[in-house]
Amino acid sequence: MIKAYAAQEAHGEFAPFEYDPGPLGAHDVEISVAHCGVCHSDMSMWENEWGIASFPFVGGHEVAGTIAAVGSHVTGLKVGDRVGLGWQSGYCNHCMQCLGGNQNLCPDQQPTIIGHHGGFADRVRAQETAVIRIPDQMELRDAGPLLCGGITVFNPFVQFGIRPTDHVAVIGIGGLGHLALQFARAWGCEVTAFTSESKMDEAREMGAHHCVNSRDADAIAGAKGRFDLVLSTVAVKMDWNAIMETLKPQGRLHMVGITPEPLDVGAFPLVAGQRSISGSPVGAPATLNTMMEFAARHGISPVTEHFPMSRINDAFAHLEDGKARYRIVLDNA
Amino acid sequence: MIKAYAAQEAHGEFAPFEYDPGPLGAHDVEISVAHCGVCHSDMSMWENEWGIASFPFVGGHEVAGTIAAVGSHVTGLKVGDRVGLGWQSGYCNHCMQCLGGNQNLCPDQQPTIIGHHGGFADRVRAQETAVIRIPDQMELRDAGPLLCGGITVFNPFVQFGIRPTDHVAVIGIGGLGHLALQFARAWGCEVTAFTSESKMDEAREMGAHHCVNSRDADAIAGAKGRFDLVLSTVAVKMDWNAIMETLKPQGRLHMVGITPEPLDVGAFPLVAGQRSISGSPVGAPATLNTMMEFAARHGISPVTEHFPMSRINDAFAHLEDGKARYRIVLDNA
Repeated sequence: MIKAYAAQEAHGEFAPFEYDPGPLGAHDVEISVAHCGVCHSDMSMWENEWGIASFPFVGGHEVAGTIAAVGSHVTGLKVGDRVGLGWQSGYCNHCMQCLGGNQNLCPDQQPTIIGHHGGFADRVRAQETAVIRIPDQMELRDAGPLLCGGITVFNPFVQFGIRPTDHVAVIGIGGLGHLALQFARAWGCEVTAFTSESKMDEAREMGAHHCVNSRDADAIAGAKGRFDLVLSTVAVKMDWNAIMETLKPQGRLHMVGITPEPLDVGAFPLVAGQRSISGSPVGAPATLNTMMEFAARHGISPVTEHFPMSRINDAFAHLEDGKARYRIVLDNA
Repeated sequence: MIKAYAAQEAHGEFAPFEYDPGPLGAHDVEISVAHCGVCHSDMSMWENEWGIASFPFVGGHEVAGTIAAVGSHVTGLKVGDRVGLGWQSGYCNHCMQCLGGNQNLCPDQQPTIIGHHGGFADRVRAQETAVIRIPDQMELRDAGPLLCGGITVFNPFVQFGIRPTDHVAVIGIGGLGHLALQFARAWGCEVTAFTSESKMDEAREMGAHHCVNSRDADAIAGAKGRFDLVLSTVAVKMDWNAIMETLKPQGRLHMVGITPEPLDVGAFPLVAGQRSISGSPVGAPATLNTMMEFAARHGISPVTEHFPMSRINDAFAHLEDGKARYRIVLDNA
């Protein structure tokens, strides 16, 4: 039996919950969870904001731990290996996206916390393909938040050929944005944080050369034509047409946060400046491995607040109150 | 004196108009105009739709002819050379865009028909950098429409690395779209035309493997997930969220037509499918030269209707009535 924490209804209290995961699949592994980050999407699923949660709900998809058991056809991992698991815990492995190394775009991907029990537990299962090795020089307690929050902001640098000579802005310095600043700085870029006054000092410590007050229309207008990439991590409506004006010719506005409202951008700034708007979800296993090596080499790690797994309800309240600085991680005893 | 046709007011009749262009600039050339295409933007400027026209207005920016005179510092062109001129007749030649070979994005570019008299005339002037050689094997009478309509749809293939294995859709089969079909087919792509029933047979002759009725929501929905690139040449509002659904993961919706309404696209299809929306204006001189060589080698040419330059008013009436199939060209005697 796996010992987890589950909510029985949307926004309900988490309580101990045991389930029988059945026989271990031939291509699956079981991870003994040491730490699990709390992502904003754990909260969205817990609140059933997207209408796709099922209950009892076991969240958690920023897992770090060790392999406890391997299925009969698993050849690349063995018991005791230090590993992690992110948003996706399995792929079809035969569609064009999987064959092409874009497993994160597989239409039959298995999310870790949708129709599957996640990492707020002592153990969690996943397909071998989706499980990522943690480099020796990386602390286990720091690895989890890289595997969802980190890869979400790292992936665009790889996918869209961002260059060290590029000027990069990050909108929103939270769980994702504070990692984006570190990645952009280590990538060699000129880095600007769009954030509130209260976070600017910390944003500079995390790698920002410059800060722009994201609530000040004049400050945004003052950044006209400055960026090759604007990476938006926020899920709230911004004045996207004003943000588009901060791009250089050929610049890209890249979204990793999903805003409920349409983007309502004009065609003219796209056409006249040969600009792009794009988006992306997490990243594929090869990109995850590349990120882990890059993060370990550059000493990139999340800024975390730790709670014992048994205090999961306190942790969710802290996140819900907007107090997380910058990522909460739950630790098993 | 240059003998042109000018309108004295918005939507006014074109009448013979002579002007003194002054001394020829050191880096400029004078082209003896043999043919000049009529682009939809000539009509927009004539109607002062964008509020930036000045009168007397001399349109025409799809010029084909021969060099009549060269300025004292011109070294790459000589009298008698077969050349053409498109939307842009000069660049600053020292900004980062110009230095980087992206002169079409130069903030100080000189449009041929804005603050400058165009090619509905016996002669027109332009900076040497902006004047494009016409390959020997290309008919002079076919060259003009490639230099604005053609480059506008060719440029994205170069800029965004479109591959011969890609599946490409073209929305709108008019002056731009009928050239886009030919380019996409010659590029090796699988080609689909989004058009009206009445143009489908011709679209197939121009290179489309498939046609989709662009006014049939069910037909558009039936193309779900099919395209790597959707190239929109229309300036009217479409159901962009439905069009986004026709893209594969990593697909791109590229706009070369400017719609007055915002695009109102949702963030979710961008993020979940790692998709992009982009735009671009005409193309730089190196891309124009590449296009001319490619078009000549593949026998790509506009489908044209010719009018004597003196019948410019009849030509504009024909275009305004939506009867042009697919590009009108005015010929000097």
